Amino acid sequence: MQRFFLELCYDGTRYHGWQVQDNAVSVQQRLNEALQTILRTTVETIGAGRTDTGVHAKQLFVHFDVEENQIRDQTRFLHALNSLLPADIAAQRLLALHPDAHARFDATARSYEYRIHFGKDPFLLNKSWQLREQPDVTKMNDAARYLLGKQDFGCFSKSNTQVFTNICTVTRAEWIVEQGQLVFHISADRFLRNMVRAIVGTLLDIGLKNKPAASIVDVINSQDRSKAGTSVPAHGLYLTRVIYPYID
Amino acid sequence: MQRFFLELCYDGTRYHGWQVQDNAVSVQQRLNEALQTILRTTVETIGAGRTDTGVHAKQLFVHFDVEENQIRDQTRFLHALNSLLPADIAAQRLLALHPDAHARFDATARSYEYRIHFGKDPFLLNKSWQLREQPDVTKMNDAARYLLGKQDFGCFSKSNTQVFTNICTVTRAEWIVEQGQLVFHISADRFLRNMVRAIVGTLLDIGLKNKPAASIVDVINSQDRSKAGTSVPAHGLYLTRVIYPYID
Repeated sequence: MQRFFLELCYDGTRYHGWQVQDNAVSVQQRLNEALQTILRTTVETIGAGRTDTGVHAKQLFVHFDVEENQIRDQTRFLHALNSLLPADIAAQRLLALHPDAHARFDATARSYEYRIHFGKDPFLLNKSWQLREQPDVTKMNDAARYLLGKQDFGCFSKSNTQVFTNICTVTRAEWIVEQGQLVFHISADRFLRNMVRAIVGTLLDIGLKNKPAASIVDVINSQDRSKAGTSVPAHGLYLTRVIYPYID
Repeated sequence: MQRFFLELCYDGTRYHGWQVQDNAVSVQQRLNEALQTILRTTVETIGAGRTDTGVHAKQLFVHFDVEENQIRDQTRFLHALNSLLPADIAAQRLLALHPDAHARFDATARSYEYRIHFGKDPFLLNKSWQLREQPDVTKMNDAARYLLGKQDFGCFSKSNTQVFTNICTVTRAEWIVEQGQLVFHISADRFLRNMVRAIVGTLLDIGLKNKPAASIVDVINSQDRSKAGTSVPAHGLYLTRVIYPYID
């Protein structure tokens, strides 16, 4: 068998997230259907991670195995796959890798963006979250710096998830104004479920209300989800990068 | 009566163009409905011009008249209007003007953009036209320069329109590469129906095929629509600016 990594991007608006599930259309289901049509056999796909309903991905890697020599011309394969996939899902790269390469376990870091705009904008519909008031960006960046480093982020995690540990190492957390939009950039070795949206909600609480930047330290130390801010809507969130030691 | 100019923008994907028509939903219909709800009376709206089905507008001005003092707080009015309009139509400014100001007749210039991208991109769906091959941009810009000035542009007009004259003065016509997209910018005092999409099709013929840049001169001089290129799809086209002597 030959293992392939496939780089995807998608607009998550119409999908119930990445992962295959009963009674709802997912990105993975649409991918599996397209692969099955081309390869004429059922293919198991493993994604780098999940995205929730309505969340977008500018880069997500998936691995799957096919018979040796079944995919000879990778450019043609990508072209055929894109013709079969819906217009809101695109296959960008196909990489032949060694049989142990794993899209989920080998990812050493992930990055997300959360996009906010002000004032009604028809062209950002489902692609950015519209906020009424301008938050204090400097104060939010002061608060964001407390997120850096290796810490227990249980306070930002969905409470009913069963994960081994809530410890993550955050390597970047900053707000940048980009062409009138306010964009939060965050990178870490791993993310807990709902973590980015809860962090953004907590930072906006600080930027919009009379809370000091350092109040986020108490939230983190509490390890209590009820101390953090409300999760912001899914449609402003983008998985932007997944890093592997063996992929540029 | 008090005359108001309203600045709108919209994603044209879901609409059969700007203008009200039977049996199809237009942007103007949605605007009229929202105005009627707020003002509790039928309002006649006059737009700066038409856009075709699927064409977008980043700026379109509309005028209408209301009873004196019916709109007292313009900010509140805009807010109410945006709440009533669908998410893909936004009201951006409301300007009180003298009773003779006319959104269509007073416009001295208009600008359009045509956006092209290469490679499947889920985030540009319905917002830009995907082209397979890279055209020769330098050659297309050489050809575009022949469009400048006061000329008869009948060759780029829908043949069944009844207009007084096909003479337009083009003040800008150039291709610019912007963040991986190829964007054609064109400004003129007036545009004929279908003119921009026919011009883009004609320039792409030159940029993708073995036609010299100057071949566009023969197309223009022919005044014959069949000599120009095929019209490109609507979803790459944006009305971007309408200029009045009295609006900044």
